[in-house]
Amino acid sequence: MIIHHYEDVEAVEMMKGVKKRVVIGDREGAPNFIMRIIELEPGASSPLHDHPWEHEIFVLKGEATARNSAGDENPVGEGDAVFIPPGEEHRLTNKGEGVVRFMCLIPTGVE
Amino acid sequence: MIIHHYEDVEAVEMMKGVKKRVVIGDREGAPNFIMRIIELEPGASSPLHDHPWEHEIFVLKGEATARNSAGDENPVGEGDAVFIPPGEEHRLTNKGEGVVRFMCLIPTGVE
Repeated sequence: MIIHHYEDVEAVEMMKGVKKRVVIGDREGAPNFIMRIIELEPGASSPLHDHPWEHEIFVLKGEATARNSAGDENPVGEGDAVFIPPGEEHRLTNKGEGVVRFMCLIPTGVE
Repeated sequence: MIIHHYEDVEAVEMMKGVKKRVVIGDREGAPNFIMRIIELEPGASSPLHDHPWEHEIFVLKGEATARNSAGDENPVGEGDAVFIPPGEEHRLTNKGEGVVRFMCLIPTGVE
């Protein structure tokens, strides 16, 4: 059993205003899926992209939108679970005044 | 893209004081891993057990302990990530006065 607080994991700046922490991943020996926590500064977005694997997202804090393949900006907030199936274009954007923090899980070995 | 608040997902009572919601699973077509949210009432525990697949846990709220194979009761709280490798005996117990809420992910198809 490995226990650590997510803030004790080193954060990587993916792009301006977007910070990622891999809280359970290769280092812990995760066999099937990887847990990351991502933070968006106000106004910041994750990249608009798609890929042949899913995301499972859970919003921990803040007010955001989740853009889908059709271009809709769906509001999401604390307590929302978001399933993005393989192949669907997506992007999360911070629409609030504070940080947006969300968990985003992916299969092992895809990144 | 499927979005829903975890409270809008039906909760199942696994045992007295232990409630489970499958927030992203077979219904959503999750290909590789399943996201569940589990709540423990004060004093309640998840079952002491082991199985040949991992758990990836993230504590959302409350004060708990995570028991490992050696019998140690490790304190965990909001923001802690817990990796339980395949085969390790484990149990979470609510040691606080409020609800403990944690996310617990498993591979698809094991339950």
